[in-house]
Amino acid sequence: RGGCKYLYFDLGEESKLLAHPDRTSTQDTFRIEYDTFGELKVPNDKYYGAQTVRSTMNFKIGGVTERMPVQVIRAFGILKRAAAEVNQDYGLDPKITNAIIKAADEVSEGKLNDHFPLVVWQTGSGTQTNMNVNEVISNRAIEMLGGKLGSKDPVHPNDHVNKSQSSNDTFPTAMHIAAAQEVHEVLLPGLQKLQAALDAKSKEFSQIIKIGRTHTQDAVPLTLGQEFSGYVQQIKYGGARIKAAMPRIYELAVGGTSVGTGLNTRIGFAEKVAANVASLTGLPFITAPNKFEALAAHDALVELSGAMNTVACSLMKVANDIRFLGSGPRSGKVNPTQCEAITMVAAQVMGNHVAVTVGGSNGHFELNVFKPMIIKNVLHSARLLGDACVSFTDNCVVGIQANTERINKLMSESLMLVTALNPHIGYDKAAKIAKTAHKEGTNLKEAAIKLGFLTSEQFDQWVKPEDMLGPK
Amino acid sequence: RGGCKYLYFDLGEESKLLAHPDRTSTQDTFRIEYDTFGELKVPNDKYYGAQTVRSTMNFKIGGVTERMPVQVIRAFGILKRAAAEVNQDYGLDPKITNAIIKAADEVSEGKLNDHFPLVVWQTGSGTQTNMNVNEVISNRAIEMLGGKLGSKDPVHPNDHVNKSQSSNDTFPTAMHIAAAQEVHEVLLPGLQKLQAALDAKSKEFSQIIKIGRTHTQDAVPLTLGQEFSGYVQQIKYGGARIKAAMPRIYELAVGGTSVGTGLNTRIGFAEKVAANVASLTGLPFITAPNKFEALAAHDALVELSGAMNTVACSLMKVANDIRFLGSGPRSGKVNPTQCEAITMVAAQVMGNHVAVTVGGSNGHFELNVFKPMIIKNVLHSARLLGDACVSFTDNCVVGIQANTERINKLMSESLMLVTALNPHIGYDKAAKIAKTAHKEGTNLKEAAIKLGFLTSEQFDQWVKPEDMLGPK
Amino acid sequence: RGGCKYLYFDLGEESKLLAHPDRTSTQDTFRIEYDTFGELKVPNDKYYGAQTVRSTMNFKIGGVTERMPVQVIRAFGILKRAAAEVNQDYGLDPKITNAIIKAADEVSEGKLNDHFPLVVWQTGSGTQTNMNVNEVISNRAIEMLGGKLGSKDPVHPNDHVNKSQSSNDTFPTAMHIAAAQEVHEVLLPGLQKLQAALDAKSKEFSQIIKIGRTHTQDAVPLTLGQEFSGYVQQIKYGGARIKAAMPRIYELAVGGTSVGTGLNTRIGFAEKVAANVASLTGLPFITAPNKFEALAAHDALVELSGAMNTVACSLMKVANDIRFLGSGPRSGKVNPTQCEAITMVAAQVMGNHVAVTVGGSNGHFELNVFKPMIIKNVLHSARLLGDACVSFTDNCVVGIQANTERINKLMSESLMLVTALNPHIGYDKAAKIAKTAHKEGTNLKEAAIKLGFLTSEQFDQWVKPEDMLGPK
Amino acid sequence: RGGCKYLYFDLGEESKLLAHPDRTSTQDTFRIEYDTFGELKVPNDKYYGAQTVRSTMNFKIGGVTERMPVQVIRAFGILKRAAAEVNQDYGLDPKITNAIIKAADEVSEGKLNDHFPLVVWQTGSGTQTNMNVNEVISNRAIEMLGGKLGSKDPVHPNDHVNKSQSSNDTFPTAMHIAAAQEVHEVLLPGLQKLQAALDAKSKEFSQIIKIGRTHTQDAVPLTLGQEFSGYVQQIKYGGARIKAAMPRIYELAVGGTSVGTGLNTRIGFAEKVAANVASLTGLPFITAPNKFEALAAHDALVELSGAMNTVACSLMKVANDIRFLGSGPRSGKVNPTQCEAITMVAAQVMGNHVAVTVGGSNGHFELNVFKPMIIKNVLHSARLLGDACVSFTDNCVVGIQANTERINKLMSESLMLVTALNPHIGYDKAAKIAKTAHKEGTNLKEAAIKLGFLTSEQFDQWVKPEDMLGPK
Repeated sequence: RGGCKYLYFDLGEESKLLAHPDRTSTQDTFRIEYDTFGELKVPNDKYYGAQTVRSTMNFKIGGVTERMPVQVIRAFGILKRAAAEVNQDYGLDPKITNAIIKAADEVSEGKLNDHFPLVVWQTGSGTQTNMNVNEVISNRAIEMLGGKLGSKDPVHPNDHVNKSQSSNDTFPTAMHIAAAQEVHEVLLPGLQKLQAALDAKSKEFSQIIKIGRTHTQDAVPLTLGQEFSGYVQQIKYGGARIKAAMPRIYELAVGGTSVGTGLNTRIGFAEKVAANVASLTGLPFITAPNKFEALAAHDALVELSGAMNTVACSLMKVANDIRFLGSGPRSGKVNPTQCEAITMVAAQVMGNHVAVTVGGSNGHFELNVFKPMIIKNVLHSARLLGDACVSFTDNCVVGIQANTERINKLMSESLMLVTALNPHIGYDKAAKIAKTAHKEGTNLKEAAIKLGFLTSEQFDQWVKPEDMLGPK
Repeated sequence: RGGCKYLYFDLGEESKLLAHPDRTSTQDTFRIEYDTFGELKVPNDKYYGAQTVRSTMNFKIGGVTERMPVQVIRAFGILKRAAAEVNQDYGLDPKITNAIIKAADEVSEGKLNDHFPLVVWQTGSGTQTNMNVNEVISNRAIEMLGGKLGSKDPVHPNDHVNKSQSSNDTFPTAMHIAAAQEVHEVLLPGLQKLQAALDAKSKEFSQIIKIGRTHTQDAVPLTLGQEFSGYVQQIKYGGARIKAAMPRIYELAVGGTSVGTGLNTRIGFAEKVAANVASLTGLPFITAPNKFEALAAHDALVELSGAMNTVACSLMKVANDIRFLGSGPRSGKVNPTQCEAITMVAAQVMGNHVAVTVGGSNGHFELNVFKPMIIKNVLHSARLLGDACVSFTDNCVVGIQANTERINKLMSESLMLVTALNPHIGYDKAAKIAKTAHKEGTNLKEAAIKLGFLTSEQFDQWVKPEDMLGPK
Repeated sequence: RGGCKYLYFDLGEESKLLAHPDRTSTQDTFRIEYDTFGELKVPNDKYYGAQTVRSTMNFKIGGVTERMPVQVIRAFGILKRAAAEVNQDYGLDPKITNAIIKAADEVSEGKLNDHFPLVVWQTGSGTQTNMNVNEVISNRAIEMLGGKLGSKDPVHPNDHVNKSQSSNDTFPTAMHIAAAQEVHEVLLPGLQKLQAALDAKSKEFSQIIKIGRTHTQDAVPLTLGQEFSGYVQQIKYGGARIKAAMPRIYELAVGGTSVGTGLNTRIGFAEKVAANVASLTGLPFITAPNKFEALAAHDALVELSGAMNTVACSLMKVANDIRFLGSGPRSGKVNPTQCEAITMVAAQVMGNHVAVTVGGSNGHFELNVFKPMIIKNVLHSARLLGDACVSFTDNCVVGIQANTERINKLMSESLMLVTALNPHIGYDKAAKIAKTAHKEGTNLKEAAIKLGFLTSEQFDQWVKPEDMLGPK
Repeated sequence: RGGCKYLYFDLGEESKLLAHPDRTSTQDTFRIEYDTFGELKVPNDKYYGAQTVRSTMNFKIGGVTERMPVQVIRAFGILKRAAAEVNQDYGLDPKITNAIIKAADEVSEGKLNDHFPLVVWQTGSGTQTNMNVNEVISNRAIEMLGGKLGSKDPVHPNDHVNKSQSSNDTFPTAMHIAAAQEVHEVLLPGLQKLQAALDAKSKEFSQIIKIGRTHTQDAVPLTLGQEFSGYVQQIKYGGARIKAAMPRIYELAVGGTSVGTGLNTRIGFAEKVAANVASLTGLPFITAPNKFEALAAHDALVELSGAMNTVACSLMKVANDIRFLGSGPRSGKVNPTQCEAITMVAAQVMGNHVAVTVGGSNGHFELNVFKPMIIKNVLHSARLLGDACVSFTDNCVVGIQANTERINKLMSESLMLVTALNPHIGYDKAAKIAKTAHKEGTNLKEAAIKLGFLTSEQFDQWVKPEDMLGPK
């Protein structure tokens, strides 16, 4: 039972319900298990146990879409295997160890996803998900060893699967593993793909001169390739920003146990588990140099979220440009739906970032208890950004073709080439030419000559768009 | 194909893929349908058609948890029925009308949820979901009438199901219907339940005097009931805030068609459909007085989200108080997990609100194209808040019991009762008494007498906690 | 001294500084005053006293631009006068009362602004500003009565000026007074002015038919007046949203004293002071029905900030539309600087809203201690929005003129008029016509006839922009 | 005039006002200057000119506290000097160069702050402030050379002071210079000071064992020094986060001129100016490798703001801990006002970050036009954080003293030491001991023996707080 109290309160009535709210079970047969509040029905086809069932009863918030992200569950599989191997070094029975490893592998491979019914909106330390993992692995290991589900024998969820661990250090460890994997498997590849596609377009468009646009108005010319090179730079730096945040994500809390001291672990446990996780994932995880910070704060995830927030700003900018540049009179047979999808993603990431910020700022004493919410949002942002970059690239960017006819027409009519005259006749006269042409509906050359500021030859010599693309 | 372009671009290569990415289908048999980009395989056991399949191919963003909320799908069912009835008034064949109504009812009852595989991250107008709805209703209606799925005969998805409508006015209409229903079915009942429970506690605790706390420090006394009355007021006003935002949510865009003018509708269509929706839902929907605003902006949902953001602040405050008041030396056998869940919800709602704000501010011209993202977040916030209030009430608030022994001890030791002396001996002397008692480790009375500021009798007469609970 | 402690800590060393950091004083002569930490130099030309000086020494955060907003200071002047009048009813010496009233009036009239050097970043209850006000009013009153500055005689800052009050109820009262006045004096007039100007333009443009734009692409036509009517509706509703938040802003905390009980006040004090404030301001202030909520939470200001956040979304939308519609080839002699200013204001208001939200959610027990930050941001948003509306109206909106030549050209070339054919020949055929015209560079009529879907006469009869502006 | 237009609109009436709204001038004498809209009165005692006066008339938004931050003005002084030196290399008259340098130095030294009356809420490119700078420097240089203010002779604001520059590249350059300087002069020193003070406390408290707190409840013990070491790590990483963002801040846009191409500059100009700025500031500025990105986006500042947002989370956490740990029965003679100030700052920084994010995401085409708003918020955050760290350190952290008597009492009464028994008797039995002790009001040892789980000797051997502070 979730439980609250008021200054040494006594809980009123205990939950006497004997119910099974998990609708993923299609069986009607149950085993009876017990927790500190009484007996509970556990569906026979599930590996989880009493504590998981209790949580499903106490936290009916948000429905099936709000379940703990599978990335966290998989990360727990990796962690539990890594810890079991080290525990064996410190004396855990090899037979038990081996069974835990096999069961943990099934968890990390996503084979047991249906056995994790808990939602994000539970204990803020993620304790119940850690218990869920312990129960599933112990029962699956028991089953492999021919034991009886729920018996805690020969593989005990706490004494064996959770050995030398606490929810308070395992959950943040799983958070970091999950975040790092999502970044490497989804976010960075997505950004790299988009960057490459934009870069190819930048090179493809390197000879197409167009009129620039500032303040949404005509400006001096640049090449379409130069314009796209700005996008390339934004996305390239986006990847750099994400990577810059990763060193602190690679720090793992495991070994800190319940408050950061590492009580009930052995010297070396933390380092060895981190090394195992690094080996299993191929990512440079290390043990957190300060476990107190690693449990009590989630600054590293706020930082990563901040990097993703910056990427969201970049994507919003690029996608807005592309849809506006692709709009215009008689253009509109195809809606810029990919731009719309990715800008919606950008807005979502900005919102997720505020949620992460609020959660990250509200830790108290030895433990931040906004953990499930924080990791949910970080993973959400990483996945959406990565997927959206791929979708945007494949279905929009690679297909962009310049309409050179229209681009040339817009440039030739523009008054902004007048800027080329600044160094020759000064700012004031140049401004007067443009104003005159605008007022009289003529072009720059005619206005310039009429005003007597220069000759036709001078105009042709000085106003060459191809000479306006860089310093001299 | 999602499609982008650049200044009158031509799309490069069209998608020639013949794939079916929807994993919800367990059948291996398909029918072939066509859209403007070519042929597509549609699973035989699904009512959706080519346009839906195309969208699943173009928008692989975020996976199954990112699907369009079922509340939106259900709202579409209501809307399509309401529109069909009005269309019959204006000439739609009664047989077709009737079949549409039956199919639409199945949608609104949630019976066809598996036929809506599209994610939120699609066209920003929600066009593809409108098409998905049209396809599902038309095919289900065709089936009822003995026709062939995909034949568009005798019930055409556009000409009949979408008659007098556009994605641009139906999607925002479904947004408002879904939001209003979630508010009435989940959010307001949750708030009312919590308010009632807090109010009962406030009355139960009306005679328990405790020391107040300001700046996290001891302050003058109040009753525990008074303290809880502040929470009651916050939640009560929270409900009022939500309700104050509803009049603009009840305004429906339907009848505006694609830009707000109502082109291709009949005079009266908008009003009649709104009346039908009101009748079907029991909520006071009306037609939006200005359809241009109703399509181009979502201020009403930003406003509702803002009201929920305020509620989130209230809940964060109340839950924080309860967990801190319930903490303390030797108290800790039961973690305040419900407080943790609801404060995580509060943080999420604050983040969702920023996403809604960013989306709401970025509409352009006749259409805001952040629609699916906006409604996803609004519904998410409403559901989480409502559910969390119920969970918090049932599993925490109703069980709160005052530990009067501890409460009395803390009050008797406090130095803050000194404030009672202010009107008798002035602020400066009172402050000196408290400072002396603090410094010397004595109590107020001893310090007061020692300082010669008053007699023992005066102290007992003036410093009575029960006299300090209100004005005189 | 600001002061912190750790579990019954003892403060290390007390501040022994005898310094005066307030650079607003141009005099070199000082009087010596005392607070609990020792003696302090107070500049002779200032009415504030020791506690104010102490605060300037302890909170050197952010410089002169970070001072407590003058609106709060003025609101304090109103409040102190209102309280003094009621205190006289309950026995305060009329001579003292009268002097307080005169001094308080000078504060509320802004005559003594230079005497309020404290920054926002002080005690979270605003205590130091309340003390600053008490000191200034008492010293100014003393001066009027011929006494000596700093003597606290015959007008004592705490015993007289702050009589029946506490920082904990006066500061939130001043917050509400200041917010309400800024809303009525700056924000609502600004919105009304903008609404009127947009409405005039909407009427002026009621006969100008233009092509609509959705997804940044061409859409079916509407009048420019209709387009502007959407803006009018947004701004009109913006005013309604602000007003809807005001009833809870009109609730005043005064009378709650330090924890909400009203200890040390007389029955009726709260109601009478609120009535006085209402009379002095002409706004319908009342006493807060629950003082516990009024001190411990600032939901009412979060709510008001949320309403302003919605207004910011509206303004961002309208200003973005205007700058994009005003852009285009050869248009660019005048940058849309007013659009830029007001959209920057909108972004700021969104950010301010998050600051207010975070502050509002972090109250603890009987007192929210983010008060100065919250009111600073609320006033900032109100002022910026109001001012920006006026600037935007005067320097942009009223000067908008339609370029009908260009508008007509864009419409005649558009392919989107094809929608008019939907009810006559069906969606599929109409789409084919547009696609053909787009592909072949011809217009709709030519394509339609070539495809054999209709005759020239039918086209002219069915495709009339002026018939496409509403339902039939 | 600010100016807006609608599809090639013509401005209605031009401003004919001859007014001077700048109240900083105390003189009544004016000179007449002209801009494109007509004549203007410029106060004789000011160095700015017509364009600055025009801006003050068109942008009356927010009042004097909203002026462009002085850090930006000073940065402009540095930039204008750096550019003048390079311009001399390319042919600018040494006499003019020298006068510009002297005048620019006065700007960078803050001597001419009164000559910069413009507010942040102006053109989104900061053009008017660049013009203000050009006018002030040219007039001050003219004055030094014996010329007449406003004559533009012999030092022209555009042709000389702004030579090879544009508002579009100078303003973002000044933004980066100002941000980098504020980070190095205020933010990083503040963080370092706080880190050092916390580190000293961590070492001072290394032998004080206290009961841990998770979920606001008692947990297993740690040292007070360990607890503080977590804070140290947070602040240390905060500094690292800020520094990690700086490389992209050191990239300067100057040399990109109006769209990023560098039109009207000479090859080498960009690199030389950046080198000069580096030399003048002592910071490693370089020329931006991609000027298109540097003008069109402000991702680097969004990134820096994100780093500050993370620091704000850290500070909120640390300050909350300190105020809660310092609270408690009878503790309350000194309010944790420094904690309150710094947590208000943290909330403000979170809000500022959202404003920066919204501004950063809304750039269009070749220019982001939220520049003044973005830099205002970044500088605000940097200054507030830096100042607040110093104030918090000096007035709170350094004075923290442990109350070891109370700390020991709380630990001895705690039931959480039971965790030490887990490895000896298993989790289930240990939990039962704690539950029994809690229920019966006894201590752990008594309960353990009574339950028969272990002997008195075993208890004493196994439960030693000093053995519970790390792995074995």
